[in-house]
This record gives sequence, structure tokens and C-alpha cells, in this order.
Amino acid sequence: MMNISGKEMLEIIVSRQSERGYLEKVVEDDKLARILEAGRMSPSACNSQPWKFIVVNEPALREKVAMAASSKELGFNNFIGQAPVLIVVVKGKGKVISRVGGTVKDKDYSLIDVGIAAENICLQALAEGLGTCIIGWFNEKKVKELLDIPASRRAELILTLGYPSKERRAKRRKDPDEVISYNKY
Amino acid sequence: MMNISGKEMLEIIVSRQSERGYLEKVVEDDKLARILEAGRMSPSACNSQPWKFIVVNEPALREKVAMAASSKELGFNNFIGQAPVLIVVVKGKGKVISRVGGTVKDKDYSLIDVGIAAENICLQALAEGLGTCIIGWFNEKKVKELLDIPASRRAELILTLGYPSKERRAKRRKDPDEVISYNKY
Repeated sequence: MMNISGKEMLEIIVSRQSERGYLEKVVEDDKLARILEAGRMSPSACNSQPWKFIVVNEPALREKVAMAASSKELGFNNFIGQAPVLIVVVKGKGKVISRVGGTVKDKDYSLIDVGIAAENICLQALAEGLGTCIIGWFNEKKVKELLDIPASRRAELILTLGYPSKERRAKRRKDPDEVISYNKY
Repeated sequence: MMNISGKEMLEIIVSRQSERGYLEKVVEDDKLARILEAGRMSPSACNSQPWKFIVVNEPALREKVAMAASSKELGFNNFIGQAPVLIVVVKGKGKVISRVGGTVKDKDYSLIDVGIAAENICLQALAEGLGTCIIGWFNEKKVKELLDIPASRRAELILTLGYPSKERRAKRRKDPDEVISYNKY
């Protein structure tokens, strides 16, 4: 039994936005714990759970990771340094059955799984009153060095987490006709 | 302002399970519309929206698509034929900036995006009282033929959708210590 209606759920999903500004306010431990739990409980191909979530909240280290995802020169993603917490999503190898299946089908199931877990984390954060931004473009080599991530693993995403400082914006999406069809492409 | 607490949200996220049995009950149009909207409004790298959602609900066609994802011999995924609606998630090409970025970083951002959209669809379905299962293993060539999907596109996932016939099961996930760490891999 859900305590939520379909309309309320859709409002939550549509409310999520990429937050590119954060307040200087600590993320409470119980909120962070539920956010990580939302990631941990995510579904994955063959229940592979091909992920590890590295919470970066030690200030000096966090700043280094943020630097590896920003570009002062280009004025690019500099807001990352404002987020009190970063969650680095590392992709593991997955189960043999999922990897073999992925090779046969030429489909990296574990990358889909990373997306699923990231969205759960973002939605949970939103329900906690927090904001997130999913960052896929960063200096992965540097981040792996900073966090001692094994060479065989990929750091796929950095999620910023904190209390957002900016207003809600209108969303731009393709028209329904462009992305939804019935019984035919 | 969210009408939902963090605890309620986590309950929803944890309640989602792969539903492998469906009732013979029609999915209402307004519910389906919100479920598709949840997919359409999903975030994606550079707001690329590299997806198309094909709703398959015409019974004869739906059965053919279900057959392309089942294996009678192996008793594998035969429940797919019970679902009154299938949603085939097709991955498009994404924006040039996202594709170039993906090539530079050796990371298929659009596959992550497909995972994000799939999870939004599943969570929205759950709030509507419906169940889903994310299927990644199917005869893609056959599905593309059946739905006239262009050769340049990939059919990444089939989502089953309908009123579930089975009880909730306990979830098995890795221990928190295995998938969560702080400031270090």
C-alpha cells in the first residue's frame, strides 16, 4: 500500500532538477543514510549490484574531487565545490552471467544499472529536501587516484548533494510525440 | 514543497520489485499517461533525452514482442506475455556534445540515461498501483523488426507493465559495507 498517489509521484519526479548552487548547510546523517540506502536497494540486471557509492565529505578531499570535475578556465561546473557532499558512483564488474549476457547482446547492462541507482539517489534526496546534480564529465583518472579506486573499476558519475540555493526552473523536454509512440517506432 | 517524507520515499523505492506475474486487468489510460510522462521528464546528459518509448498494447503484436523476450524451452521470462502493456525503451543518438563527450571519456552517457528513465517509469508505475519488470535480455533484432525501429537505434529495454499477481518478496542486496564507503574506495 503506497501512501502516495500517482499524481503526487509524478510531481516529485518532475520536481527533480539539476541543482547548480548549494547553501552552506550540513546534510544530516539520517538523511544521508536513507539516500545511500535508496542507492543500495536499487534493482540491477541479474541483481548484480555492480556499484559502489563513495561518499566524499572530508572537506580537503572533497575540494580536490570537486576540482577534478570543474574547469576554472571554462567556468564549467564550478558549483560542484559548493556541495557539502559528493557521492562518487563506481561501476563494478557485475556478475558473470550479466557480463556474459552483456557481451553477447553488446549491451553494458551495468551502465544502465548505474543510471537506475543514480536516479533513486536523486529522488530520495529530493524527498529529504535536498538537491542533486548528476555529473558525468570529470577527470576520472584524477578522481580514481584521489579515492584509491582500483584500476579495474570505473568512476562513472559524481552526484552533488546539498541544500539547494536556487529556485525551481521550468523544464525543457521534447514533445510527447517525439518520444512516445504506440505499437510502432 | 514535497508532500512526502524521506521515510515514505524510501519505502516506495524499496517496495519496487520485479513483477513476474500479472492479472488480466487493463491499465487505465490516465495511469499510462503519467507513467510515460515520468519517462519523458527524466534527466539526461546535456538534456539529450536520447530515448523513445514505444508502448506495445495491441494484443497480437504484444504477444510477438513477448515471444521475442521469452524462451519456452528454458521456461525463461514466460510471464512477459501476461503483461497487458510492454514499453520498449529505444536509445537514440543523443546530442552531438553528449556523444563527443562520451567518446572522449569512453562512457556511453545515453545508456546511463536509459537507466534513469526506466527507473522513473517503474517508480511512477508503483505509485499507480502497477508493477513492472525491466527486461534487458531479448531478441533485439526481432523486436526491432516487429516495431519498425531504425537500424541506427538500439532497443535497450523492455518494461512489462500491469497489475501484479504476486506477493511482495524480501529483497536480497549486498551489505552496506560492501557498497558504501567514505572518502576512499
